[in-house]
Amino acid sequence: MDQNGSSSSNTNTMRSHCIEINDNEEFEVHKVEAPPQKSTLLKLKARLKETFFPDDPLRQFKGQPLPKKLILGAQYFFPILQWGPSYSFKLLKSDIVSGLTIASLAIPQGISYAKLASLPPIVGLYSSFVPPLVYAVLGSSRDVAVGPVSIASLVMGSMLREEVSPTGDSLLFLQLALTSTFFAGIFQASLGILRLGFIIDFLSKAILIGFMAGAAIIVALQQLKSLLGITHFTQQMAIVPVMSSVFHNVDEWSWQTIVMGFCFLVLLLLARHVSIRNPKLFWVSAGAPLVSVIISTVLVFAIKGQKHGISVIGKLEEGLNPPSLNMLRFQGSHLVLVIKTGIMTGILSLTEGIAVGRTFATLKNYRVDGNKEMMAIGFMNVVGSVTSCYVTTGAKTAVSNVVMSVTVMVTLLFLMPLFHYTPNLILGAIIVSAVVGLIDISAAYNIWKIDKYDFITTLAAFFGVIFISVQTGLAIAVGLAIFKILLQVTRPKTVMLGNMPGTDIYRDLHHYKEATRVPGFLILSIEAPINFANINYLNERISRWIEEFEEEDNIKQRQSSLRFVILEMSAVTAIDTSGVSFFKDMKTAMEKKGVAFVLVNPLAEVIDKLEKADKVNDFIRENNLYLTVGEAVTALSLEVKDQQSSMQDVPL
Amino acid sequence: MDQNGSSSSNTNTMRSHCIEINDNEEFEVHKVEAPPQKSTLLKLKARLKETFFPDDPLRQFKGQPLPKKLILGAQYFFPILQWGPSYSFKLLKSDIVSGLTIASLAIPQGISYAKLASLPPIVGLYSSFVPPLVYAVLGSSRDVAVGPVSIASLVMGSMLREEVSPTGDSLLFLQLALTSTFFAGIFQASLGILRLGFIIDFLSKAILIGFMAGAAIIVALQQLKSLLGITHFTQQMAIVPVMSSVFHNVDEWSWQTIVMGFCFLVLLLLARHVSIRNPKLFWVSAGAPLVSVIISTVLVFAIKGQKHGISVIGKLEEGLNPPSLNMLRFQGSHLVLVIKTGIMTGILSLTEGIAVGRTFATLKNYRVDGNKEMMAIGFMNVVGSVTSCYVTTGAKTAVSNVVMSVTVMVTLLFLMPLFHYTPNLILGAIIVSAVVGLIDISAAYNIWKIDKYDFITTLAAFFGVIFISVQTGLAIAVGLAIFKILLQVTRPKTVMLGNMPGTDIYRDLHHYKEATRVPGFLILSIEAPINFANINYLNERISRWIEEFEEEDNIKQRQSSLRFVILEMSAVTAIDTSGVSFFKDMKTAMEKKGVAFVLVNPLAEVIDKLEKADKVNDFIRENNLYLTVGEAVTALSLEVKDQQSSMQDVPL
Repeated sequence: MDQNGSSSSNTNTMRSHCIEINDNEEFEVHKVEAPPQKSTLLKLKARLKETFFPDDPLRQFKGQPLPKKLILGAQYFFPILQWGPSYSFKLLKSDIVSGLTIASLAIPQGISYAKLASLPPIVGLYSSFVPPLVYAVLGSSRDVAVGPVSIASLVMGSMLREEVSPTGDSLLFLQLALTSTFFAGIFQASLGILRLGFIIDFLSKAILIGFMAGAAIIVALQQLKSLLGITHFTQQMAIVPVMSSVFHNVDEWSWQTIVMGFCFLVLLLLARHVSIRNPKLFWVSAGAPLVSVIISTVLVFAIKGQKHGISVIGKLEEGLNPPSLNMLRFQGSHLVLVIKTGIMTGILSLTEGIAVGRTFATLKNYRVDGNKEMMAIGFMNVVGSVTSCYVTTGAKTAVSNVVMSVTVMVTLLFLMPLFHYTPNLILGAIIVSAVVGLIDISAAYNIWKIDKYDFITTLAAFFGVIFISVQTGLAIAVGLAIFKILLQVTRPKTVMLGNMPGTDIYRDLHHYKEATRVPGFLILSIEAPINFANINYLNERISRWIEEFEEEDNIKQRQSSLRFVILEMSAVTAIDTSGVSFFKDMKTAMEKKGVAFVLVNPLAEVIDKLEKADKVNDFIRENNLYLTVGEAVTALSLEVKDQQSSMQDVPL
Repeated sequence: MDQNGSSSSNTNTMRSHCIEINDNEEFEVHKVEAPPQKSTLLKLKARLKETFFPDDPLRQFKGQPLPKKLILGAQYFFPILQWGPSYSFKLLKSDIVSGLTIASLAIPQGISYAKLASLPPIVGLYSSFVPPLVYAVLGSSRDVAVGPVSIASLVMGSMLREEVSPTGDSLLFLQLALTSTFFAGIFQASLGILRLGFIIDFLSKAILIGFMAGAAIIVALQQLKSLLGITHFTQQMAIVPVMSSVFHNVDEWSWQTIVMGFCFLVLLLLARHVSIRNPKLFWVSAGAPLVSVIISTVLVFAIKGQKHGISVIGKLEEGLNPPSLNMLRFQGSHLVLVIKTGIMTGILSLTEGIAVGRTFATLKNYRVDGNKEMMAIGFMNVVGSVTSCYVTTGAKTAVSNVVMSVTVMVTLLFLMPLFHYTPNLILGAIIVSAVVGLIDISAAYNIWKIDKYDFITTLAAFFGVIFISVQTGLAIAVGLAIFKILLQVTRPKTVMLGNMPGTDIYRDLHHYKEATRVPGFLILSIEAPINFANINYLNERISRWIEEFEEEDNIKQRQSSLRFVILEMSAVTAIDTSGVSFFKDMKTAMEKKGVAFVLVNPLAEVIDKLEKADKVNDFIRENNLYLTVGEAVTALSLEVKDQQSSMQDVPL
């Protein structure tokens, strides 16, 4: 750095100078430089890159020969080309095992979730066949099992039921479901392509925990229909109508169903408990559903369960996914609803899928490109929507999707008749035991401990979901979360700094008791970007700092000793036109009080804008820009000394 | 400060220690302290105060005797008690003069603006009589003239016309207008009482400039009706329908109206020009409207203008504001519209009123409490709504409201017949000459120069208003502004710091060319609160910093030399549960790379939360907290040295 402040300084508002201290040793002040000149276009480019390409996905392409580039490109869009070659026989074996285990979980769950979305059970199986294959080619995480998930199913069902009755017009209902799936896919893919993945970040962990718990309860309540054997059940979701419809149909309860249902439920929960206690026994909880399906089916078949009021799935046709392009309806009165449902379920399944992907990525120490992942999931759903699948996403289990989907295929082709006598109660039990895992109380407690406001959003999501509706619950929670951010922006922290004795370090007076004030100086650090939303607050807050400062002086029977107000700007990362006018007002106010107004370490962007505005209303004078608070204080107090001494000289 | 790191340290995660440097001089590391312990309640209290009472309005009451307190309280709610006693005869004289001048402006404007809101002209006069008196008692700024303003009138008119035709059912229309005024008042007052004044800050200067200009054009276009003498004019506002209706009714144009109208328009604009050139001649532009009203009225009366197709106001009944409590309609189909209109006009008139108050406050160096001001304006409008006044607010002219309102009273009582022959064209001319002042091109140019994104919001507001509708235009602009804030939050700046040679100062490497890297150290400063909205970005961005760092090393044919990642946390003013989990992930990632993860100067709140989380997942180990980057670097590199030397000792 040019320490002699030579004329290489490319702007008149900046300077470096040395101050003679009496005993001839020099105290040196560092120059606050203007940032290197950049064209608006360059700045824009840099900004865009930082904003939308933080991971700089094309970095690996740089300086590579063309063929290499092509390979990398192919690998970018088809990650299978990345890990495929290194795929070994050993991996295959373990994949087959896990694949089979998951399939035994996926088949009953697929059927159950489809019912949750008021769709024909078989659609759930379709959705466990095609999408996994697509994801295996496009997805960047090999540890994600693809299939329908409870929450997306729940939401799709409840939203579509608002306009169409699944029992009344089941074909239309199915069409709308497929069309929503299509839109969900389009929405997800475009989020990825437009690099807007960060939008799902607004569903914070705090919100999701509350939301998941609420949704789990809603889902579980829905299962009372099959677990109690009620035939006339409400179409609504919220807890109040459901419970009332449960207790207004007590006459419909069938004790056989109840007994059988809760026996299996206990079994499944036990299995789950075992696997949690001892992760090695993962297969126990994974296998339990299929086992209980088989047992219950046989049982019902043996004891002619229907005659005892135990309802069964009934006939399921065999065969693979029929093409369903002709089922998509892009016109007609329900289009808006369908798009809304698509976006909603799209977002929800993304949050689950991406979160899972990220978790595994951290565990196994590889990176997941959220935006790329979204394209994969989106494309998967588009393909799904034309092959009779509804919204699917990644679920949290290590698995080979190919093996699983093959198993499902076999089931679809040959095993469907076996499900004829499967009682609905078992499906209910399976769902309940599955969603119980979504209620994470300890996590909620942690949130309460660390951040009360976050906990409020958690509660909002939870109660919103169970008492009003899934969408409303989410909306309220996200609204609260964004409101908090806006509040932080409109109410930035301003801190009064004091000197750490024996150093030139300046720190928060309220945090470090030993930090001491420098008489005559008011040193404030502004800790947020300055923009239209907070200039008025800053104005009021700072003028209050000053008034308090003066009052304290007056108490000490002296007139105000305030000479300098120093603003530490390191944390002011951005400033807009209102921010500039804020400085103008500050300067006016200061001059009225006869107080000097000094800036410390403004960042490149800020200096830039202040300079531009400078031509309009000059408030960057010489000598009011310093690199550190320490230097500012030393330099300024030295100047004061000089003035005083020279004043004393006069009378002599 | 305890420089010997004695056991007074009240937490195990913090410590201070001295390191022996070979030549026995001691290098001393300062202790990062835990913030003073505070109960959740205390924290909440402090937070609430900082958030909603930045100006600490009750400060003046502290330590005062009770009677004094009562007086102060009265003065707080009735500022007139503050400035009243010191009111002098001299002030009175000047107030009478200015009051008369403004009245001569207010009367014709009142009539014109009422027509702009499709209300009977007389309502405009009513609204210049009662509200000023209310404000004189409650308002804290004596430099604000109260009365109807063009934009609120425009918006109220256009919004109400969506559902009710002012010509078809004029009574209902008036009732709705008064009811909206009532709601506007309630809304404004409650904003003030709930200390939510900052909400109007979201209408940034950039937005308002675009919005005002657009609105001015819309308003001016509406005047073509009276200026061209068109009888069949569109009810719509947007530029396209208006122009088309102008040119589809060419046959209705009356040349007498046009000639007369544009003559007066030119006169008024000239008067305005004069006053701008020479502010002393303020009275010219202030008086011009009344003068031209008088002249034109006489003229029309003399030449029997109506016979030549010049439309006139017609009969206006005399007398003061009739009470209108019975006119408020709180039930019926239009309630929603009325509330919406109330809120919209309420916000708009606030932005104008508060802005004006603030401007004068800065000029004359007194403070205006925005929230108190809102209560005053709100109460004023509530009173107005029950005395046949529609939304009013402060306008930008120094004036005595009492004198003005008295003058208006006189007019209402005795002078109304004189307006019978006043031609509508003159009202149009007056409005046009008034709104021209709302178009501020130089300000727009400044915005363009300083901040391009702000300029985009300006344009959005402008074009939204003139092409779509006032509400939509505003909504789009505010949406853009908030999106920018959210983008800043989701994309916080992370900067790589380097050492300024010969100092222990660390600054942005890209800003200060002479700053140099410290080998083995990656020093990043995070410059925003860490929360759910940005943890994923920070994760990606930081891991990219690290990868780039390692790549550069590899290019230099060495294995990665990265030993320490230092996060400078001074600018991380807040952190939520997601933020905590972010640190957990960072730590995991670092440990995988065998890199030490060090925090510098975390703020009180952050330390607090990290400690709480620490019990859950310990990532604050000893020796990874420092007060300044300089100390961190020195201490850590010394430790490395020690290790190496001890290693060398082994073989010996």
